[in-house]
Amino acid sequence: VGVSEFDIIERYFQRQLRRADVVRGIGDDAAVLEVPSGHQLVVSVDTLVAGRHFPQRSHAYDIGYKSLAVNLSDLAAMGAEPAWATLSLTLPEADPGWLQSFADGFFDLAARFGVELVGGDTTRGALSITVQVQGFVETGRAMRRDSARPGQALFVTGTPGDAACALAQIEAGARADPYLLERLNRPHPRVAFGRALAATGAAAIDVSDGLLADLGHLLDASGCGATLRPDRIPRSPALSAAGGERALVWQLCGGDDYELCFAVNAEQTGRVAALARAEALPIAEIGVIERAAGLRCVLEDGSSYQPPCSGYDHFADERAD
Amino acid sequence: VGVSEFDIIERYFQRQLRRADVVRGIGDDAAVLEVPSGHQLVVSVDTLVAGRHFPQRSHAYDIGYKSLAVNLSDLAAMGAEPAWATLSLTLPEADPGWLQSFADGFFDLAARFGVELVGGDTTRGALSITVQVQGFVETGRAMRRDSARPGQALFVTGTPGDAACALAQIEAGARADPYLLERLNRPHPRVAFGRALAATGAAAIDVSDGLLADLGHLLDASGCGATLRPDRIPRSPALSAAGGERALVWQLCGGDDYELCFAVNAEQTGRVAALARAEALPIAEIGVIERAAGLRCVLEDGSSYQPPCSGYDHFADERAD
Repeated sequence: VGVSEFDIIERYFQRQLRRADVVRGIGDDAAVLEVPSGHQLVVSVDTLVAGRHFPQRSHAYDIGYKSLAVNLSDLAAMGAEPAWATLSLTLPEADPGWLQSFADGFFDLAARFGVELVGGDTTRGALSITVQVQGFVETGRAMRRDSARPGQALFVTGTPGDAACALAQIEAGARADPYLLERLNRPHPRVAFGRALAATGAAAIDVSDGLLADLGHLLDASGCGATLRPDRIPRSPALSAAGGERALVWQLCGGDDYELCFAVNAEQTGRVAALARAEALPIAEIGVIERAAGLRCVLEDGSSYQPPCSGYDHFADERAD
Repeated sequence: VGVSEFDIIERYFQRQLRRADVVRGIGDDAAVLEVPSGHQLVVSVDTLVAGRHFPQRSHAYDIGYKSLAVNLSDLAAMGAEPAWATLSLTLPEADPGWLQSFADGFFDLAARFGVELVGGDTTRGALSITVQVQGFVETGRAMRRDSARPGQALFVTGTPGDAACALAQIEAGARADPYLLERLNRPHPRVAFGRALAATGAAAIDVSDGLLADLGHLLDASGCGATLRPDRIPRSPALSAAGGERALVWQLCGGDDYELCFAVNAEQTGRVAALARAEALPIAEIGVIERAAGLRCVLEDGSSYQPPCSGYDHFADERAD
């Protein structure tokens, strides 16, 4: 006997917190929600497909966690406060153990950020998860990726490259380093720091496709270029130990970091450092925004560095740029 | 050479109207939107999978159209005004002709309802489309499915069963009747009527899983039962001609109608009829809400009728109820 669609929703996806701003949650044709006055709505959506966004044999808990985390990271990059999520789950079969574990991962992270699941959809098909997260930001305060200006200092949070290294270990059939694997499977969306950063007028983007690719988007949108100092990108001890020569490539080209890359006026760098300390979040100044288009990578010895990538693209056989 | 993810978005999904309440649309980590004061946000999401929600060989235009239409129908059932959509598109390959046609279907319908695409995601994988639509409703005015009360009159819009008949013709390898096929592929979400109906205090649900299944949801949520008069469900001439003995089964059990089923106080029936006339939308009174749980189908000759279904469920091998 199969588990019916409605049973799935009731059994696994209705236990959770209740926000006061959810007028109608799961159980009607649509959710009804209250955006607080003086705030704008912020909406992000991402689809995760098995074998593309997580390894085929990933634990269901991690898939549930990550499907929400990647969207929270987008909200962090806008400086928004997360509030509500919807989940579209396409599954080859309704396996109770898998569903329980997936829901555990999803709701553990949701509870940490006060997010309520307000709607969704379950369908039979190849495993695919689409999560949409909605939140809000004080009117006019959302961070943008098109507002970087020449002379601004360029920063990144955390230690990029960890996730890509773990994925490479898995794909090589090796046992992934536990620290790196945790970074791949359970990224920490930088929501609190993003909220604080929005007050500085920063231009920001989240790093999901790889630092260079996402920095490239920020520069393109802003009509600027930059000089990047690759040696200044923080590197975790685990990546240093595991990565060898390839560590820098993973840091620049890897993807799946869910860190924030942002540009602020030079006089704001002290304030930004204080905000990061308050969140116990390591950040590093890794370059400078410039008028001239393009990205120049300069090592500490003054030599220029040519990265072997410009990012990750789901459909490109060869990158056009 | 493949079409890159970013090219897809730019080429096919950026031509469209610009709403004044879209502060940031496509092109940042998340969209930034303005909900008008005195209104609540209404959110619906649905996933369409090839072979389940549309025939495998459906025209891309129809898939694009329908992926939006099914969500607009949910908003109609809430009495909400549609405003914004996001689209998560998972595709086996980036075929320019397919994408162009899909986008045409999506945007033709979006333009008709003033909906702006504000975000999305493209991924490679088995064909699957998740659309989320957001709109708003005057605070406290959203129609619910749990507010039906004994004595209320039960209505349905349009002519249910058309889509199911077309699908059966396709599945039988026959050429589908053009009128019925149009009803299957390009349902008309009852948005304007739903907006008007909300003012009557109706309890409403959209008919997507089949009239009996969705009426069952409305009754369960409301803690009521009903007597349904199957003979009074409007039947299109095309369905009468094509359906024979099975027409009633498709009307009750078929699914994919995207009509509204609703209950209103008896003294509102005249007003409801006038609202429907104003929208040139046929509606019919098909039964009455009752205190006793369960659904009783009574034919015009007074005999009771036992429908061969209680609805459609993506995961059920056998229905539990």
